[in-house]
Amino acid sequence: MAQSSSSESLSSISAPTRQILALSGGVGGAKLADGLAQRLAPGRLAIVCNTGDDFEHLGLTICPDIDSVLYKLAGKNDIERGWGLAGESWTVMGALKKIGGEAWFNLGDLDLATHLHRTHLLRQGHSLTDVTRELATALGIAHAVWPMSDDPVRTIVKCDGGELPFQHYFVREQCHPAVTGFRFDGIDSARPHAGMMHMLESRSVEAIVICPSNPFVSVDPILNLPGVRAALKHCGAPIVAVSPIVGGQAIKGPAAKMMRELDMPASAEAIARYYGDLLDGMVIDQLDAAQAPAIEALGTPVRVAQTVMNSGEDRCMLADIVLSFAGSLKKPD
Amino acid sequence: MAQSSSSESLSSISAPTRQILALSGGVGGAKLADGLAQRLAPGRLAIVCNTGDDFEHLGLTICPDIDSVLYKLAGKNDIERGWGLAGESWTVMGALKKIGGEAWFNLGDLDLATHLHRTHLLRQGHSLTDVTRELATALGIAHAVWPMSDDPVRTIVKCDGGELPFQHYFVREQCHPAVTGFRFDGIDSARPHAGMMHMLESRSVEAIVICPSNPFVSVDPILNLPGVRAALKHCGAPIVAVSPIVGGQAIKGPAAKMMRELDMPASAEAIARYYGDLLDGMVIDQLDAAQAPAIEALGTPVRVAQTVMNSGEDRCMLADIVLSFAGSLKKPD
Repeated sequence: MAQSSSSESLSSISAPTRQILALSGGVGGAKLADGLAQRLAPGRLAIVCNTGDDFEHLGLTICPDIDSVLYKLAGKNDIERGWGLAGESWTVMGALKKIGGEAWFNLGDLDLATHLHRTHLLRQGHSLTDVTRELATALGIAHAVWPMSDDPVRTIVKCDGGELPFQHYFVREQCHPAVTGFRFDGIDSARPHAGMMHMLESRSVEAIVICPSNPFVSVDPILNLPGVRAALKHCGAPIVAVSPIVGGQAIKGPAAKMMRELDMPASAEAIARYYGDLLDGMVIDQLDAAQAPAIEALGTPVRVAQTVMNSGEDRCMLADIVLSFAGSLKKPD
Repeated sequence: MAQSSSSESLSSISAPTRQILALSGGVGGAKLADGLAQRLAPGRLAIVCNTGDDFEHLGLTICPDIDSVLYKLAGKNDIERGWGLAGESWTVMGALKKIGGEAWFNLGDLDLATHLHRTHLLRQGHSLTDVTRELATALGIAHAVWPMSDDPVRTIVKCDGGELPFQHYFVREQCHPAVTGFRFDGIDSARPHAGMMHMLESRSVEAIVICPSNPFVSVDPILNLPGVRAALKHCGAPIVAVSPIVGGQAIKGPAAKMMRELDMPASAEAIARYYGDLLDGMVIDQLDAAQAPAIEALGTPVRVAQTVMNSGEDRCMLADIVLSFAGSLKKPD
């Protein structure tokens, strides 16, 4: 114990700050990521964003989840619409429609600037990590926002009628086709973000937070990168997920619909079962408190909280709960 | 004579309509192209546009000369600014500047729609010819507007300080560096537009009009495509150029500055000497009437006219003069 205490005080002086690693998809994930960013000093938080939703459109590289996180952390996201930038205009898309252009993916004028800038920097040979850092800096964000990989991974949704690239399923088809599964093009050769792997392997991570994002298309692409599950298992820090399902519904997006189509109940418990022994704890909504015993019976401690985040206070409160819950959990050796 | 008359009347029934081929760069060329389009029925005019100015920027394929011609013929060009679209806004560029993006090439919101649409279609595997036709149709243009080639040719400006891609010289450096020459990347393997070559080789062309465009960077890329000069020589139709130099100045653009830097006088006569025996006639401005004898002494018949086009009437009037002048010229056998 004396030795441990001495090493602890040493670590507080010279070792790298212990960090929180948040794994995030788009809107819901970005909200909790923002709560964590409000509560943690820069340097204590790294947000790893899914890039399986990324796509090339009209010559531009579009990274919806990275941008949702960046715009949210910058306080520039549109709250009413739930995606994109506040004060957005649609001049380019209006003109594109008039000349018969492909306008199913609605890109705002302000948002387009992000895609143009990113595409330009990527073409110059910069990595997506570097480009994301530059965008974050330009937006005044001090926290680390990382793509899950600099290598392209593209989520393909297997549907009754065949396969669809994610954005075709999500935006063009409005999630109507019934899903039968998913695959992640390019994942086998994609290298997970070096900063994330370093955090996990150097055991400098204090907790891993799986944000309330779609497990299939937002979190799985990160978890399924080569070496990530093993590194998570061995990093020594507790892994806590916040359920994206509340009262049988996803707050936003097709997670609940997908679960039903995949013959799972759309419930927090099914999310817990899906993540399985990866989790050391789960935060579920107060609406789902009755499911706590069943989840704990799986061996996963549960914290019940208000997980629906309608305000900055909600986001901070949930971040506090997640952090204190994670702090209370012992990672089994 | 009887035979010739019979073949003429046959040709008016069954042979393809004899066409005017206009070779055009951007603004000045587009003005005369528009005059020709006003005066000639669709099917009697093909406008071949320089693509040496084209470039890839921010992930988009931008074709300034094609767009100048399209916007002009559609009546959508901005008259005050002299380039781009009327009623343009600059929201995207404003946002791009704020995030530190490369904003030296000013792309309007409406104009961006054109570049996004074109880039998307090119990426889908459509040729620039097809894309240009689709844009022309969307803009309500019935005349044939053709890129000089579907293969990329890129004008490189040789300057005192080294080489610059054309748009870097033209827009970013505002034509400040002194030029020493030009080269056209990719021209050796670029195939000239099939429609243009067919017109020339089938001798279905009635006249070739070299619009008042920069001879070095707007017209030469077209003329220097493999086989074009030979096809022009042998097509049997007169070739008429309109001088882009008026009173020692270019109406717009760096032609006069380039001529001085290349040790040529900035004069209509020097333009005539530069095109040499390619020309069967030259239209010069009334301001330069005194140069007519010197140009005719080179063996090039001259028509003096008002070549500065400040209105639609000016454009139509110059088109009429060019067409009647060409009709009066006999191509030497």
